[in-house]
Formats: sequence, C-alpha cells, structure tokens
Amino acid sequence: MRVGIVGGGQLARMLALAARPLGIDVTVLEPTPSPPAASVATVIAAPFDDPAGLAQLADTCDVITVELEAVPVASLQWLNQHRPVHPSPQFVAVTQDRLIEKEALRDAGIVTAPFGPDTPLPAVVKTRFGGYDGRGQQRATTIDELTAAINALPDPIVEGIVTFHRELSIIAAADAKGELRYWPVATNEHRHGILHMSTPRLDDPRQHEAEALARRIIETHHIVGVMCIELFDTDGGLVANEMAPRVHNSGHWTIDGSTTSQFEQHIRAICALPLGDSDLRQPCATINVIGAEPPLDELLAIDGVHVHRYEKPARPSRKLGHVTVTAPNDWLLNERVQRVVTVISPP
Amino acid sequence: MRVGIVGGGQLARMLALAARPLGIDVTVLEPTPSPPAASVATVIAAPFDDPAGLAQLADTCDVITVELEAVPVASLQWLNQHRPVHPSPQFVAVTQDRLIEKEALRDAGIVTAPFGPDTPLPAVVKTRFGGYDGRGQQRATTIDELTAAINALPDPIVEGIVTFHRELSIIAAADAKGELRYWPVATNEHRHGILHMSTPRLDDPRQHEAEALARRIIETHHIVGVMCIELFDTDGGLVANEMAPRVHNSGHWTIDGSTTSQFEQHIRAICALPLGDSDLRQPCATINVIGAEPPLDELLAIDGVHVHRYEKPARPSRKLGHVTVTAPNDWLLNERVQRVVTVISPP
Repeated sequence: MRVGIVGGGQLARMLALAARPLGIDVTVLEPTPSPPAASVATVIAAPFDDPAGLAQLADTCDVITVELEAVPVASLQWLNQHRPVHPSPQFVAVTQDRLIEKEALRDAGIVTAPFGPDTPLPAVVKTRFGGYDGRGQQRATTIDELTAAINALPDPIVEGIVTFHRELSIIAAADAKGELRYWPVATNEHRHGILHMSTPRLDDPRQHEAEALARRIIETHHIVGVMCIELFDTDGGLVANEMAPRVHNSGHWTIDGSTTSQFEQHIRAICALPLGDSDLRQPCATINVIGAEPPLDELLAIDGVHVHRYEKPARPSRKLGHVTVTAPNDWLLNERVQRVVTVISPP
Repeated sequence: MRVGIVGGGQLARMLALAARPLGIDVTVLEPTPSPPAASVATVIAAPFDDPAGLAQLADTCDVITVELEAVPVASLQWLNQHRPVHPSPQFVAVTQDRLIEKEALRDAGIVTAPFGPDTPLPAVVKTRFGGYDGRGQQRATTIDELTAAINALPDPIVEGIVTFHRELSIIAAADAKGELRYWPVATNEHRHGILHMSTPRLDDPRQHEAEALARRIIETHHIVGVMCIELFDTDGGLVANEMAPRVHNSGHWTIDGSTTSQFEQHIRAICALPLGDSDLRQPCATINVIGAEPPLDELLAIDGVHVHRYEKPARPSRKLGHVTVTAPNDWLLNERVQRVVTVISPP
C-alpha cells in the first residue's frame, strides 16, 4: 500500500512517519527542493499542476491525499479520475475560498462571524484565497480604512470582529463507513497571528458542541480522513472561524498525547483501516518553534519534552518544529511548559 | 549530526525513526539487501568487516553504534580509532561470548546460573558464540546426553538449570557524564524459545534490585547508551541470564508506553544530549509478531493497539513486527492483549 500526498512539508513528513510502522509507503508531490518529507518519503519533484508529476503520483499510489488546501482543484479532480482522493476535491475547493467556506459553514447551520457588505465596523478585510498565519489581513475601524483595505487586497472579503473568550479547535476523523472519532478540543493561543500553543483539555465544556459542528461538516461533505474546525468560544456559543481539510497544527499534541495521532488516524481512514482511540492519555500541550531553532540540548533537559523538528531552513515567522510537553498532572505540565517557552523564545 | 549504526535490522529502523524528529540522520552498514532500516536511513551495503564500508561509515557519521552484538570486534575497534563508538568494542566483545559474559557478571558481583565443568545435571549446553532465540542450545539430563551435546555444539558451554518464578529484564541508559535512567522492569514470556510478550509493571518488587545490577554493569564497563540484562526471578533473588549491549526486544513497549522510548534514549545518550523520562505512562504490553503477518485491519480494530511492522519477508520463527497495547487500566489491558494474541496466533 502506498499513499500519495500532494505537498511535502511538515504535515506530509509526520504523515509518512506515522505510516512507516504500519508498513505503508508514502510518496509526496512537491516542487520545493529538499522538503521536510524528503527524508521519510519518496519525492516526485514537480509543481502541483505538472501533468507528468500528477500521472506519476496516480500511477504509483493507491490512494491520494493533501497536506495543504492551496492545491489546484483541477489537479485533484484529475487524480480523482484515477485513484480515490481524500478529502474530496470539492471539499478542498470549499476551504480554499473564505467566502465559499463561510457559506458552507452557514449552510450546515454553523454560526460564523458576520461577513459580506453589511458587516458592521470594526471589521477585518481578508483575501478570499491564500493567506495563512494572519497574512493577507487588514483591520478597519472606519469607512475610509475599510475602502483602503478592500482596494489593497486581491479578492477581498469583509468579516466582522467576534468577541470571544478563547480560540479552540476540534479535530475529527471519519472513515468511509461513516465511523467518527473526535479528539478532545484544544485551546489555541496565537502570537503575532501565528499559532503559539495548543492545549487539549479533558471534558472541555465545549466538547459536545464542537463535536456536533464537526459531525455536521463531515456528514454534509462526506469527508474521509482528518479535518479541523477552528472556533471562537463566545457568550453565545461556538462561532466557526475556519476549516482545514487535513491534519492541523493544533492537533500535533496527538502524536505524544493520544493513543492514535491525527497523522496515523488520517492514514488509517484513507487506507480503509479501522480508526483508533482519540483519547487524551496525559495532560499535554504543544508549543510551536517559529523563526529560529532553539538549542536542542536545553529543550531535551526538560522532563516530558518531545521534540519534533521539521528540518526546514530557518526564516522569520516560519514554523520550524514543535515541542509537545506531557506530564502526569496539570501543575507539572504548566511548570514544564513555562521552561520550554523560555528556551524557545528567550525573554 | 549523523549516527552510524552497524546493522540495518528492525532495531536500526526504530533507532532511525526515533532520530528523525530530533533532526538527526542515520546511516546503517548492512550487507542484506532491502533491510528494515532502508526506508528511513541511508544504507551502506557492505559486510560488517568490509574496509571500504567501514571507512564510509566513519567518514560520514559523527558517532557509531550497533544494533546487534554479532559484529566483528576488529571492525568496531577500527571505527573507534576514527569516531566515538558506543557501546565500547570491549563491552560488545564481552556479550559475544557466553563464557566471558558470565565471568563479567560474576566479577561484577552478580549471580548467574552455575556454569563450567562442575555444573550439576540437568544442565543446558549452549554454544559460546552466536545463537539467539533459543537456537544452538541442548538440554542434558544424563552424562551421555551431556557428552553428546558437548560434542555436537561448537565452542560449548555448560550451564546449570535455574528454577525461577518468571523471567524479567531491566533496560537502562547511561550518558557519558554518568547520568543513569532505568525503565520499569518487564516480565517476559517466551514461546518456543522466542520472546512472545513483555509486560512492564510499576513498582515491581524486583525493581530496585534489578537497577542495582544494571548500575554495576554500566559503571564497570563505562557504558554509554542503552543496555539490557535478562534476569530470572528466583527464591534467592535475581539471577542474571544474559546481557545485551543495545536496545532490546523486551523494551519495545517504551515507544508507546514511556515518555522516552529506548530508541530515542539511546540516540540522546550517544549524541551527548540529555536523557529523558523513563517512566511508564499507562499499563501496556508488547506482543511479538513471529513467522507470519497477521491481518492489519483486525489488529487495528482493537482499541489501544500500536502496530510496528518491520517490513521483513515472512519466514518461520522470524520476528516480523510487534504490537504494543496500551490501556487506562490493567483489566482493559488484559482484555485487549487477549484479543491481540488471538489475531496474531489464531487458536
């Protein structure tokens, strides 16, 4: 069995590392030289819309998936004529476009931030396509600022500001038979628009509500594999921010903190293997390594630390790895997390 | 940083899988085509005593280790002139020879089975060199049988029979500064002379005694890295059976059941990185897959199952993989283990 992945970044790397012990091979299609997945997967070095590259992926793999949503839908549609593609090209298309995505959420009965022409100010103007980690976004509090932002950004969408207590995310998995698994929701903290830390909690008060939202999306869009919904916890309940049709940064804790990681679960789901336990084995948290590599020996000197480097060249604002901290109790977890944060981002 | 491993079997494979997230590369020296480590490490395809292969290993790696003790000591000595080799060639030599090994244990004040010419009958005649998984052994209850066995086996050593309640093993790690870590001891069950199942236990009554024995060996032989002592639990205390200068089958549970696996710990130790927690996170047990591949979907349908395939061609009595079962309590663990055993060895 060989899984083909469009994209060879850190998510493909961790998918390949999870597939290996199951005896499942991985090939990635990736134009960038020496991508993070290169050391653990076969690489087809070609752009995502290269006919020869796509043909090679379809010829050599039994099932195809993606590690990012910014993939030409036409490529996925072509692949899907030859091999099963999970998630479906249609669902990937939905998540590529902030407008279509918000409409899809609303159509599934899920509350989103207000959007469109009638959005009250202050608001955020975003680009419909592309843009991640807070890039391609401008805040507007006056009509003039709004007009300027709309003119500055390609394909703008105006979104209302949501007042929330915290950001959280639910990661769920589904197989082709409709079997569903949900991990405990994680609370996410951002710094400069980039995910800094994710902390799952057992029996989070929003767990059942978040699961119901994920189920609606999975069932409406017939999703097979792992998906994520980022949510705002507000006085009026959960408000959906965005969806990812794939494994997600806020679920990296599952490698060390759950019986089945989101990566192994995705491989199981798309290979028609039974889904595994999506429990929380111990208190844990994941902290991202961004922009610069911290000293490995200082990280490993902290108890309960699991280091995951992506082997990417360092660059400002770039995710270079993550550290998951596990601990027998919340008090120790907090103490260890503080030490890890100090090593990663010295004061 | 690149680690060189003499041997490219499943232990090298799991060492490489543990090294990858730390950003550490692995090269293996292995004459067999397509060894288990091939999909996750660079392979130098050459015999263990091939001068060009050894030179390439020394040239390209920062530190050298072994995944088996049946390695020419001269090769390790040569490598050690160019790079640090852990464990030391001297200690590997000790574990290659059952006679020297028993003398080393006795010299460290550790009780072994009686051995040598005065061993009372019944006894077991073993070959001093090579032999594993019960191969190269004959039991003798009469003088005639003993004589026949001694004549039949090359380099025979006679060992007394030890009456024991159970077999167990201690796995320990040491770094170059003398820091030591011990995992909880595991109880081992064999079938047809091959390890069938290992079950670690928190607060095993023999834990402290086993740790003391491991410490004596580590300190006497200045071991850096992971090592294992197989022990018999007898009325008179622990009796040492044999030692392994490396990660060990009875420690595979540490991948899924401990904060730091024996594989990551060995990599940390030989790369002069701090050692990690050697705790038992949850009740767990490892069952070996021997001779034939069980149906993957049936295994994965059992909760708490972690499948580790070695991607070796199936052959009778060959270890093809292992399954570690984790569970929130001993009752559930036992129930899951029974189901796994039924799938692996149908009644």
